[in-house]
Amino acid sequence: MKHTATTSFNLAPSALAMVPFVSVENMMRIVNTLGPANAMQQMSQYIESDFARWDQFDKTPRVAAHSREGVIELMPTSDGETYGFKYVNGHPANMARGFQTVTAFGVLARVDNGYPILLSEMTVLTALRTAATSAVAAKYLAPPQSQTMAMIGNGAQCEFQALAFQQILGINTVRLFDIDPAATKKAAANLAASGLNIVTCTSSQDAVAGADIITTCTADKQCATILTDNMIGSGVHINAIGGDCPGKTELHRDILLRSDIFVEFPPQTRIEGEIQQLPEDHPVTELWQVIAGKAQGRKSADQITLFDSVGFATEDFSALRFIHDQLARTGHFVELDMLADPDDPRDLFGMVKRAQNA
Amino acid sequence: MKHTATTSFNLAPSALAMVPFVSVENMMRIVNTLGPANAMQQMSQYIESDFARWDQFDKTPRVAAHSREGVIELMPTSDGETYGFKYVNGHPANMARGFQTVTAFGVLARVDNGYPILLSEMTVLTALRTAATSAVAAKYLAPPQSQTMAMIGNGAQCEFQALAFQQILGINTVRLFDIDPAATKKAAANLAASGLNIVTCTSSQDAVAGADIITTCTADKQCATILTDNMIGSGVHINAIGGDCPGKTELHRDILLRSDIFVEFPPQTRIEGEIQQLPEDHPVTELWQVIAGKAQGRKSADQITLFDSVGFATEDFSALRFIHDQLARTGHFVELDMLADPDDPRDLFGMVKRAQNA
Repeated sequence: MKHTATTSFNLAPSALAMVPFVSVENMMRIVNTLGPANAMQQMSQYIESDFARWDQFDKTPRVAAHSREGVIELMPTSDGETYGFKYVNGHPANMARGFQTVTAFGVLARVDNGYPILLSEMTVLTALRTAATSAVAAKYLAPPQSQTMAMIGNGAQCEFQALAFQQILGINTVRLFDIDPAATKKAAANLAASGLNIVTCTSSQDAVAGADIITTCTADKQCATILTDNMIGSGVHINAIGGDCPGKTELHRDILLRSDIFVEFPPQTRIEGEIQQLPEDHPVTELWQVIAGKAQGRKSADQITLFDSVGFATEDFSALRFIHDQLARTGHFVELDMLADPDDPRDLFGMVKRAQNA
Repeated sequence: MKHTATTSFNLAPSALAMVPFVSVENMMRIVNTLGPANAMQQMSQYIESDFARWDQFDKTPRVAAHSREGVIELMPTSDGETYGFKYVNGHPANMARGFQTVTAFGVLARVDNGYPILLSEMTVLTALRTAATSAVAAKYLAPPQSQTMAMIGNGAQCEFQALAFQQILGINTVRLFDIDPAATKKAAANLAASGLNIVTCTSSQDAVAGADIITTCTADKQCATILTDNMIGSGVHINAIGGDCPGKTELHRDILLRSDIFVEFPPQTRIEGEIQQLPEDHPVTELWQVIAGKAQGRKSADQITLFDSVGFATEDFSALRFIHDQLARTGHFVELDMLADPDDPRDLFGMVKRAQNA
């Protein structure tokens, strides 16, 4: 609000000073208003359309502050009209100390004037966007009419993956396995009313039996071998989520050598993904090229496809765009007085002084 | 909050999910509770002590997203214990469209677990930290017992500079000049009760007459010559604030050649500061070295010292640390439910589902 009279100042923050904020509570309200599966389906359209216009995005490398205990990263991107960034930490030892391993929040802003237009929690949102991204990739890579998905690792990401694949791919069966039976029990209970056939399995080998799609989302920090070569039959699609930082992989190298590998952003995936096990020049296909029609996805019924997913800034951007579009619709946000907007921009000091007298 | 019972879940966000937020309104309350001059004096101690332990800081370059209309930057830093970043935009055309040229907010987080511990507006806070930093530099560089400061450019930063120099340096007179007399009138009115002698001047030449310290904080975007060589007598300290981005300078090159130049972080200042007019190898002294006793500040009575200030991430970090320390003392903050903290970290989906049933 601008006016020139010096005798009457509006002491309430102007509309321009306000930034919509989506708390964890409001994020859960938005997700529950739409339904988690439906929310992921809608979000997947934002992800898919943003991958299709890949060239428009600024692919700045993430800015990482490493410490002995973990990492804090800022992941910015922009499509020239909207700017977004995510703050995310990764601290493997947190769990044992009663903290989350990963927490995140994000911001969208207008490129033309630099004003933030959304501040949002992103811990819940990242779970949704990760599963929605997996489902988008599988649309292009999984065997047609896939019905059964093996889920190895039944932690925080498991149910989101199952519901996204049910909603977006049309699978009807999930085969659950985790080295901790309590995790499988938790996932099975959460999915009980989903309409999916839930099969609890006793080993990874058991889980992959008859699966069209194999999703690995374990939390092992060190290089692990969740899947070995003999477990992978021809024609499956592997959706590898858990290998997402240096030293953290889930698949035996031999599986990679038999697969056609699809990645989000090669410079990042070569450091963080399963392909950190391979030479730097091992051929990979960028997912955006498949979505944009510039490269082929699945080519044959016996091809093993692998989506080596590590999460990329554009996916967070798409997820934030989706949430921004839900604000007016759902009303599940509050406005934060986050930007100073003095009546006279040159009179910042006067604004502070008048606040005292108010 | 962690517990293992599966029958009773606490649906309210746990204390760990909460991040203190300082809005513009609460920032003004904090500043007014302490008094602006006193707030800057206290903050200057944080700035000075952080400069003195310069080696402990991660000096990551800022991450800039440039567009035709302006720039959005993330400025991260860390001292190994605490991590901080500032989001700041710079859009010169904003003013004409009714928006602020610069808005900012910032975050502090714990390095050991990655959890944010403060989200704060930084538009007002940056004004305070810029003036406090100027005063810290002047403690080491200005003539002893400086009494009179010329202030060329009477915009948003002017009063903060005047009060910081009064409080921290002990000046008693400010000589104001701006090409727009309305700006000078505004600053004079805001400073009327400060106890400073306020002298309104008709030109830059008039303003610098008899000044021990010359502060330039004009908003010219293009290379400007606010000060020419003949205006600068021996022995003065020049506090150059306004030249802070490529193409934006305030001082004639000849002044630079006669001055001993002190900067915050040479790689940044050579691009953004007054010294962008000089060859890349022109000698400069880093302010932190002076504060840490590793380099000399003012050496003689006839030396011209120049603080070529562009603003650096550690100063924002110091300012955020200062504000964080005021939270418990003043209570001027609210808590935001910004971090998901499920009772069982592996049961993020269950947390969302239970929120619906609540």
